[in-house]
Amino acid sequence: MPRAGPLKIKLQLYVGEERAFGPGRADLLEAIDHEGSISAAGRSLGMSYRYAWMLVESMNHGFVEKLVEAAPGGKRGGGAVLTDAGRRVLAAYRSLEAKVVESARGEALDQLQGLLKPEA
Amino acid sequence: MPRAGPLKIKLQLYVGEERAFGPGRADLLEAIDHEGSISAAGRSLGMSYRYAWMLVESMNHGFVEKLVEAAPGGKRGGGAVLTDAGRRVLAAYRSLEAKVVESARGEALDQLQGLLKPEA
Repeated sequence: MPRAGPLKIKLQLYVGEERAFGPGRADLLEAIDHEGSISAAGRSLGMSYRYAWMLVESMNHGFVEKLVEAAPGGKRGGGAVLTDAGRRVLAAYRSLEAKVVESARGEALDQLQGLLKPEA
Repeated sequence: MPRAGPLKIKLQLYVGEERAFGPGRADLLEAIDHEGSISAAGRSLGMSYRYAWMLVESMNHGFVEKLVEAAPGGKRGGGAVLTDAGRRVLAAYRSLEAKVVESARGEALDQLQGLLKPEA
């Protein structure tokens, strides 16, 4: 019987009880950079337009500068691009994530992996 | 104007797209150990009984052994205790979490913190 798949680590950043940044927001910023619009980015990630927009609003309000600049033409009209702040936040998060994943390797993670039930 | 509160790190462990363990489950195991029942543990964490029980079921099915042993008397009737496996999973997760939080300190986290908006 094969073992359960490998444990994957997800790193969420909170301020108090509020989520500030994490893998979903990072993926969305990358997809916006690639797709050039919030709706296309959300679609590429299987998110509803409403949810993608809500995440963008939350990020734009939570940081000192907007992370995403939506072009004129209304919420559904224009394209969207990452700002410099958006690129900085994304790069810093990916760097932090890589460091954390690397640091997590070792005995404790192996123990948890060993206690996981084999897949059916 | 005070800066935003410090960024807190939460470490979620997934198998594929399914959550295997994280801070909520760890807190619940600790509370069960302290309170001696799932309902009291959930209450102490502000979780509904239904949600606390769902987390316990999920953990008990996801690992090679049960992490929580509910005493006879029905779901709402008896007490509950951590099994040895429950203690091992909890200890390994807390150890991993401490290592990750320590490793996260540094430039990337400082950058993210610096880009967070000051609190109103």
